[in-house]
Amino acid sequence: MQIAKVLGTVVSNHKTRSLTGIKLVILQLIDAQGQLLPSYEVAGDVVGAGVNEWVLVTRGSAARKDSGNEDRPLDAMVVGIIDTVTVDNRSLYSKKDEYRS
Amino acid sequence: MQIAKVLGTVVSNHKTRSLTGIKLVILQLIDAQGQLLPSYEVAGDVVGAGVNEWVLVTRGSAARKDSGNEDRPLDAMVVGIIDTVTVDNRSLYSKKDEYRS
Amino acid sequence: MQIAKVLGTVVSNHKTRSLTGIKLVILQLIDAQGQLLPSYEVAGDVVGAGVNEWVLVTRGSAARKDSGNEDRPLDAMVVGIIDTVTVDNRSLYSKKDEYRS
Amino acid sequence: MQIAKVLGTVVSNHKTRSLTGIKLVILQLIDAQGQLLPSYEVAGDVVGAGVNEWVLVTRGSAARKDSGNEDRPLDAMVVGIIDTVTVDNRSLYSKKDEYRS
Amino acid sequence: MQIAKVLGTVVSNHKTRSLTGIKLVILQLIDAQGQLLPSYEVAGDVVGAGVNEWVLVTRGSAARKDSGNEDRPLDAMVVGIIDTVTVDNRSLYSKKDEYRS
Repeated sequence: MQIAKVLGTVVSNHKTRSLTGIKLVILQLIDAQGQLLPSYEVAGDVVGAGVNEWVLVTRGSAARKDSGNEDRPLDAMVVGIIDTVTVDNRSLYSKKDEYRS
Repeated sequence: MQIAKVLGTVVSNHKTRSLTGIKLVILQLIDAQGQLLPSYEVAGDVVGAGVNEWVLVTRGSAARKDSGNEDRPLDAMVVGIIDTVTVDNRSLYSKKDEYRS
Repeated sequence: MQIAKVLGTVVSNHKTRSLTGIKLVILQLIDAQGQLLPSYEVAGDVVGAGVNEWVLVTRGSAARKDSGNEDRPLDAMVVGIIDTVTVDNRSLYSKKDEYRS
Repeated sequence: MQIAKVLGTVVSNHKTRSLTGIKLVILQLIDAQGQLLPSYEVAGDVVGAGVNEWVLVTRGSAARKDSGNEDRPLDAMVVGIIDTVTVDNRSLYSKKDEYRS
Repeated sequence: MQIAKVLGTVVSNHKTRSLTGIKLVILQLIDAQGQLLPSYEVAGDVVGAGVNEWVLVTRGSAARKDSGNEDRPLDAMVVGIIDTVTVDNRSLYSKKDEYRS
């Protein structure tokens, strides 16, 4: 999987029927130093990720593993909202720190 | 999925039988800032996308998920015509704006 | 799929049994402006493409969709000989023009 | 597969149910000269790899081949801890040398 | 498939059980001009390729197509030892020439 930040949403009304009822988000990929990469993905979202949250995105046939999505033509899916990324025993990202007031 | 713009069509008369009856379009990929990327895909199209429209393209085994295409040797498919792309709460693309007179 | 030009052939006598009886061609990928890309593929060929012809190559599990190839370890397949590529309503490639005397 | 070094861990509490109970590690890919590459993967880990160990990572549908993981939306998996890499009859990496006191 | 040269071997003792009994080789990819590329693959080998031999490597689910390997978490496999590569009617590689005394 890759780490990504939620940028926003993509809306398509005229689409293949099997895509009906799935929210599509646009994600910017993030590298292992926490920097934004030029690559992005438009992915299905079943975990309800909000804009700017860090998420895990899975790609390929893995995107259709969850119940109800087996027959959707998805090649990318948000599978989790990230709480912490720890690299070399240091915290690279902590959701709690990002969002505390 | 990736965002792409329809460039045109590809015609192949001498092809594997399982490709008969599917329209093939050539797509230029677009990045998350709305700029054209150097990459392209030749994809099947079941939604009837027109030249210059922005579409969603899915790749890999996802391209064969829709009924009637399970046995076609497709690795890319147009699955929706894009209405809006919203990034950081701003509109990156709106089909209505593109096409209004 | 990608557009590619047939460069030549690859012969392997000592191979896995499931590859017996399939012709292997080497293809140079072509971009959406008709220029040669640095990437190539060694692909199975069931349509009988000749050297220098433009073809469509499909990759991944799509390469094994046609009858008789389901159990071959192929990840790329020539699925059609291209007649025309039309981009922005102009002809990028026409087989008839290439080969007329 | 690719050779990779374990950087650390990724924790996601709010995730798709099918990811429950699998440890997620973040891996830096390593090239065939033993140098760190810019690419990384977040992968499932069933072999218990420790930080800084060299591992083999498999990607795509291969990541779900092991019993119990068939239905998880994983596209990358640590499948082995590397003992030795031998290139041109010279040792590129030996775990014993790395960890001996 | 891609053309690759066998660099050496990778040994992993602590691995997922389904990888037991398969030899793992490390391959340097070669381009269509016969030059070494920076990319490599660690692949299963069932054809018994030797160091420096040119081989065909297949990737993705194709790597698990041969009998006995369906359930191994492999994403790359050596499927043939190359005898000849012919590009533009000229010989790019001939195993006989490489190895004659």
